[in-house]
Amino acid sequence: MTSPRPGEFEVIARYFAPLAAGSPMGLGLLDDAALVPVNPGCELVLTTDAMVAGVHFFPDDPPALIAQKLLRTNLSDLAAMGARALGYLLVTAWRDDTPEAWIAAFAQGLAADQQIFGIHLVGGDTVATPGSLSFTLTALGEVAGGRALRRSGARPGDDIYVSGTIGDAALGLMVRTGRLDDCDAADAEYLLSRHRLPEPRLALGQALVGIAGAAIDISDGLVADLGHLCAASGVGAEIAAGALPLSQAAARALGRAPVLRETLLTGGDDYELCLTLPPARAAAVQAAAAIAGHSGGVPLTAIGRITASSGVRVRDEAGAVLTFGQAGFRHF
Amino acid sequence: MTSPRPGEFEVIARYFAPLAAGSPMGLGLLDDAALVPVNPGCELVLTTDAMVAGVHFFPDDPPALIAQKLLRTNLSDLAAMGARALGYLLVTAWRDDTPEAWIAAFAQGLAADQQIFGIHLVGGDTVATPGSLSFTLTALGEVAGGRALRRSGARPGDDIYVSGTIGDAALGLMVRTGRLDDCDAADAEYLLSRHRLPEPRLALGQALVGIAGAAIDISDGLVADLGHLCAASGVGAEIAAGALPLSQAAARALGRAPVLRETLLTGGDDYELCLTLPPARAAAVQAAAAIAGHSGGVPLTAIGRITASSGVRVRDEAGAVLTFGQAGFRHF
Repeated sequence: MTSPRPGEFEVIARYFAPLAAGSPMGLGLLDDAALVPVNPGCELVLTTDAMVAGVHFFPDDPPALIAQKLLRTNLSDLAAMGARALGYLLVTAWRDDTPEAWIAAFAQGLAADQQIFGIHLVGGDTVATPGSLSFTLTALGEVAGGRALRRSGARPGDDIYVSGTIGDAALGLMVRTGRLDDCDAADAEYLLSRHRLPEPRLALGQALVGIAGAAIDISDGLVADLGHLCAASGVGAEIAAGALPLSQAAARALGRAPVLRETLLTGGDDYELCLTLPPARAAAVQAAAAIAGHSGGVPLTAIGRITASSGVRVRDEAGAVLTFGQAGFRHF
Repeated sequence: MTSPRPGEFEVIARYFAPLAAGSPMGLGLLDDAALVPVNPGCELVLTTDAMVAGVHFFPDDPPALIAQKLLRTNLSDLAAMGARALGYLLVTAWRDDTPEAWIAAFAQGLAADQQIFGIHLVGGDTVATPGSLSFTLTALGEVAGGRALRRSGARPGDDIYVSGTIGDAALGLMVRTGRLDDCDAADAEYLLSRHRLPEPRLALGQALVGIAGAAIDISDGLVADLGHLCAASGVGAEIAAGALPLSQAAARALGRAPVLRETLLTGGDDYELCLTLPPARAAAVQAAAAIAGHSGGVPLTAIGRITASSGVRVRDEAGAVLTFGQAGFRHF
């Protein structure tokens, strides 16, 4: 502990009120609630996720990255609905021995991401805990009424796509925990960064409105999340393991250890989008993806097809159906 | 532990999805986010509060009451803004040794309050924690655009009112912790119930729109919360300790132990409303209060006046200014 921690109201005034200063919605964190105007014809999109020390992050992870990952996992849910981000509420539970410098770094991470995503803190709560540091973030977005992307819109015959590359975050967690130590330093750093700092596909999600029939973000692992999408749609899916888009780092790791294929398919935390659409919209979706994102668009890769029979089947290059020990992350 | 606890998805399906079944907003908890339509001309009102075992509740409190208090403290924030409640999101962090019966009772408390307040669960997250049980609730409300009650609308010369009776919850906490043992059983039970199960003044808050100049709910103690209201308005306040509306149980406790006056004035957790308005609106506010609430309206009592100079002064019956050791609850 580097310094005595300031009190509740000082923490709010010193670290969180400045994060709310750029938006009228938060009323300077000085009122009982936030006031959020919604554009005519739009619906509000709301999602909430928590992170607990020892469960969702390591207590010695950089505080700024913990804050950014918490914000980005919530923004990823907005992306999966095709929403524009409006702001967020944040509940922080601090221990008595949390150093003030830790709180300051956590807030700096949020400030950096507020710049990137063009949003502000609009409300929250600051409490003490005798247990684990924990944080709950509620993200607010907006989408044209009736136009949100849903999990339930997949139909047999639809193509299945994923954005970006799959499996990097699961390998990054292995790097973090010392279970993937034959990478070179650059690959290890890349994979770790994908685990620590996901890229919510907000621009892509908005570009998919009216094109994708169904969408979900990949937080529990591709097979599990595609399974959630299929269950919500009352359909099944068949994907080709060989079609999975891999980063160069992941492809090299898989080349050295083919057993990692299961990790790539079932590992969580990539926060890419998985989406479905009729084959006739293939050109439209590639055009949408090409202009979404920071620079040069977001790659979209077709990995399989929606089926009428339920369940997610993964086939290898020889056409054999693969089976997995555990299809995705569960908290308990 | 009475039984092995079911897994994350089973907990959601068994206990939380039924709480979302009555509203289309939550999409059955089967999608990435909730979709909340907002009536034309309205703003969304959002507030979030957390409760941590050992800080905000005792681990052996009845789980249903813990859930209801969490929901009601958030609804109280909506009341203080003059909003109508629309729904809520809930994050639960369970320990491995939390019995399933505890989770079931917690959900039953929410189900009971959903009936009372006419709202449903619309989203959330279910995680594991190695530390303290903790819960974060985000409540959603709606208010006509630009009409929300704010803390910042108090002006010198305004009268200050409080709803209901003040100080009961602080005495109830003393009952709970064995520090007020000379009450009779009925008084003890009443005070304890006020501590455990606050009554959010939603109908009153909505009735105050257009009448009250400023409002806040009393969660940190009257003196502290009136201080927050004054700070937001750039004014001060002077209140009369003798004007404080007390329940019969609180009045009897004060009669036996005059030293409790400070507890009544500075204790937290009553979740009554404190509001200000010009004297010319005295009849209008009493008329509004008379028709708000379940039966026979909500009592409103004038306790003082807003001043131009900052700070909250409390005078006793002889006109002397009282000073207090700690003006309100802080978490740390």
